[in-house]
Amino acid sequence: MYGLIGKFIAAEGQRDALIDILLEGMASLPGCFSYVVARDPQDASAIWITEVWDNAESHRASLELPSVQQAIARGRPLIAGMERIAETAPAGGHGLAKEPL
Amino acid sequence: MYGLIGKFIAAEGQRDALIDILLEGMASLPGCFSYVVARDPQDASAIWITEVWDNAESHRASLELPSVQQAIARGRPLIAGMERIAETAPAGGHGLAKEPL
Repeated sequence: MYGLIGKFIAAEGQRDALIDILLEGMASLPGCFSYVVARDPQDASAIWITEVWDNAESHRASLELPSVQQAIARGRPLIAGMERIAETAPAGGHGLAKEPL
Repeated sequence: MYGLIGKFIAAEGQRDALIDILLEGMASLPGCFSYVVARDPQDASAIWITEVWDNAESHRASLELPSVQQAIARGRPLIAGMERIAETAPAGGHGLAKEPL
């Protein structure tokens, strides 16, 4: 499996709007086991995104999907910064879908 | 919801053994929606753990469970370091269980 841990910094006052766009745009992602969008209670502009995919190619391919392209286009003006915290290789876990979504 | 993103550093050569203990010990956690254990491909000693809980109290209570206490006791000698990257408030996502596990 392939995983990502990332952090977005929203433009001021735009965090909730950006979260809505992220959740809507990512509703159906081939090869995705898990995609969680979280607020940072310590930083009113920060969003944490943690992802689990079957492999890196599925993640890459998702960026070309029309729904994701639209989300990127809508979300970009609301993003002040992005940071990739880690690229991971999930070994397993609990609460992961048995099959990709 | 309540989330955690953390990083363990395993003692040299002990990462896979520590991952096994983490996965076994966390097989049944009341209030837990997701618990993912991942290797860091860039650092042979690093493990990333991302968690989603219904609330912080469920997470705290899990640390008292006999299965988790046993995992902590078995895992502790294999841990060289721990770092809490973020405490989060998950807003939603895909691939989360409908109910806690």
